[in-house]
Amino acid sequence: MSAPAINVPAEQMMELLEELAAFSAPGPGVSRLLYTPEWLQAQRFLQERMAALGMGVRMDGVGNVYGRFPGSQPAAKVILTGSHIDTVLNGGHYDGAYGIAAAVTALHYLIQNFGQPLRTIEAVAFCEEEGSRFPLAYWGSGNVTGLYDGSEAARCADSAGVTIASAMSGCGLACRPEDRGAAAAAGDAGGGTPLREDIGAFVELHIEQGIVLEQAALDIGIVEAIAGQRRYSVKVAGSTNHAGTTPMGLRRDALAGAAEMLLAMEQAAIAAGDPLVATCGKLEAAPGTPNVIPGEVQFTLDIRHSEAEALEHFCSFILDVFAELAAKRGLTLQVTATLATSPAPMDTGLNRQLEHIARRQGRSFRSMVSGAGHDAQLFSPMCPTAMIFVPSRAGISHSSEEYSSPEELAAGLNLLTAVLYELAYKES
Amino acid sequence: MSAPAINVPAEQMMELLEELAAFSAPGPGVSRLLYTPEWLQAQRFLQERMAALGMGVRMDGVGNVYGRFPGSQPAAKVILTGSHIDTVLNGGHYDGAYGIAAAVTALHYLIQNFGQPLRTIEAVAFCEEEGSRFPLAYWGSGNVTGLYDGSEAARCADSAGVTIASAMSGCGLACRPEDRGAAAAAGDAGGGTPLREDIGAFVELHIEQGIVLEQAALDIGIVEAIAGQRRYSVKVAGSTNHAGTTPMGLRRDALAGAAEMLLAMEQAAIAAGDPLVATCGKLEAAPGTPNVIPGEVQFTLDIRHSEAEALEHFCSFILDVFAELAAKRGLTLQVTATLATSPAPMDTGLNRQLEHIARRQGRSFRSMVSGAGHDAQLFSPMCPTAMIFVPSRAGISHSSEEYSSPEELAAGLNLLTAVLYELAYKES
Repeated sequence: MSAPAINVPAEQMMELLEELAAFSAPGPGVSRLLYTPEWLQAQRFLQERMAALGMGVRMDGVGNVYGRFPGSQPAAKVILTGSHIDTVLNGGHYDGAYGIAAAVTALHYLIQNFGQPLRTIEAVAFCEEEGSRFPLAYWGSGNVTGLYDGSEAARCADSAGVTIASAMSGCGLACRPEDRGAAAAAGDAGGGTPLREDIGAFVELHIEQGIVLEQAALDIGIVEAIAGQRRYSVKVAGSTNHAGTTPMGLRRDALAGAAEMLLAMEQAAIAAGDPLVATCGKLEAAPGTPNVIPGEVQFTLDIRHSEAEALEHFCSFILDVFAELAAKRGLTLQVTATLATSPAPMDTGLNRQLEHIARRQGRSFRSMVSGAGHDAQLFSPMCPTAMIFVPSRAGISHSSEEYSSPEELAAGLNLLTAVLYELAYKES
Repeated sequence: MSAPAINVPAEQMMELLEELAAFSAPGPGVSRLLYTPEWLQAQRFLQERMAALGMGVRMDGVGNVYGRFPGSQPAAKVILTGSHIDTVLNGGHYDGAYGIAAAVTALHYLIQNFGQPLRTIEAVAFCEEEGSRFPLAYWGSGNVTGLYDGSEAARCADSAGVTIASAMSGCGLACRPEDRGAAAAAGDAGGGTPLREDIGAFVELHIEQGIVLEQAALDIGIVEAIAGQRRYSVKVAGSTNHAGTTPMGLRRDALAGAAEMLLAMEQAAIAAGDPLVATCGKLEAAPGTPNVIPGEVQFTLDIRHSEAEALEHFCSFILDVFAELAAKRGLTLQVTATLATSPAPMDTGLNRQLEHIARRQGRSFRSMVSGAGHDAQLFSPMCPTAMIFVPSRAGISHSSEEYSSPEELAAGLNLLTAVLYELAYKES
């Protein structure tokens, strides 16, 4: 069977993106934090829209929304596509919402043009990915894949002290660990267990949120792996002293020591080569007075790589370098690991399909590592998983300035639709 | 005439130091900010104590307090010694107060043991040196030497919006520029023009506020020069970007750039050698989020040297290096000069006298540069000026932990008393 022509017009997706952007708290850009009124309105709107397009609609126990076209082979596993409905505070129109709007548009196009699929296809709007309201992330896909079991809802609160459980209850939702084994109840909210063990493949379409595709003038990024991440909090302590009366040779300057460490880390990261990235995003020097030598500096490290061994090796290497530099300067060093996630490889077979389709569609593309985390990383240990990137203007994301052109967004939509066709319509 | 034995017991000075420390706002250490009730009480107490010791007492228009023993040669210029009565917030017992307590004790000892001097000798408690309440420093000695003319009082306010003029008025003081030419009025407050053109020599005794003497296990530091100082505010701007999605080669990381600049400055300062010191005391990286590459860093520079040319050369060299490093990284650099003071050489003749006396008194000593500013720097262009340092434990100052032992303080007192004898009692 030769590949049929896939040519999805982008208007429906662009309109849906604009409609979703309207569900926002006041202020610049789009602010749609988990379990807020604007979040609930967006998920209800999506359910209505999916239903109007003929999908079977469901909201699970944590607020993930699914729109489904059932396949003719009910025993076959589900082909799932989508992304997250929540945004950061003052975020843009595309982060998350693009993957949802494209999923809904792709599924509708496939049904309209090719009728019922062999395998059930679903579009999903995960309730949360950003970690912007509560101090956890991937609440949507994490409950679907078993990272969370719902018990976190009672323990975890936002900065105003509202727990997830209490915020969920305000949206008519409840997620009880004891329900995990039970079948999903009918109805559009509080719809039973979020856990999904019936997924045959997951494909997520997302803006790159980086400048690699734009710099290389490419249409598409096919993600090889989502980078694993280590975060550390580092404290360097020396002696606070008078900037005028302390000769250079008698100083234990914590800031000069931190500067040497950061420069060494940058040089080592450049030497290690892509896709390793190492960043200090936050640094505070105390006491912070122009005429006083800083006696203490605290800074953060964020280190990422797509291969677990390379990530581990770089982290232990650079922390050894820090210890040597501290010792050389008579400074004390205290390092606390604050986050560790493993790299998530995408499915090589799916990626070969994506490359094949991209060529057929005349798109320029490259394989790349996603330095940012995504819902897809939670599916990668469970089922064949793929991610497609489109360019972000100037690499800007998490900002009202976030932008990808309609043409760029349409290219991603067509690649997604074509791969969903292969996954759902073709005999395996 | 051979040198008489000078052996000043330290008890009177130590008692006066403890009495002065009691004039403090509540809180740790000593807080005696300019024109506060505790400041006024301290200056009134000093006037009473000086009067009780037989001195002629006067408070000038800005609140400097003088205690005078007139000499037998009324036409001869005055030999002046002392320091500042104000402290930083939560300061120690010794910074400033030591020079005053020693001055009063030395003058009393000289009169008791040697009778009337040839030249008038005065002890002074300058009203302000630290710049802790109002955004200017050396208000006491600066009004005496012509750095200020009193007109600043109406324009300059503390953080609560109280002008110097208003705070002075609360202490019964007034300092009008139009009074400058007028003779000092009698009375103990509002006592006319602060300007002094009758000073023949000024000697200031002070704690080192650094660790040089302690590290070298020396009794005395004889100050060659007070360092000139340059301060800058530096802004480095790059691109704020996602720490995960931006490869090392596509970054314009303002913090990595700032780190390279600070390390280069430290290396250049070490290479330049003592007495050059260069410090970054304050650094702020924005936006300051662990997973975001900092797009902007602001930091301060404080650079000091005892020779104007060497100071100028280092500053222009290091700012050129900063510009090169910024250009190499595609960062923009903005440098604002915020302070520039000239080095103040002390009198070489007076210093030779001090060395001679120190040897005679069996004190170990060294010549050194004062990296900190002092009242003495304002007298150095006007008259022979000298400064004597005693060790500060661990170099700590501007802290309630400030400490010098009674033996160390006594050594300084005896050196001061002996040089005052030579200046006031010996035929020139």
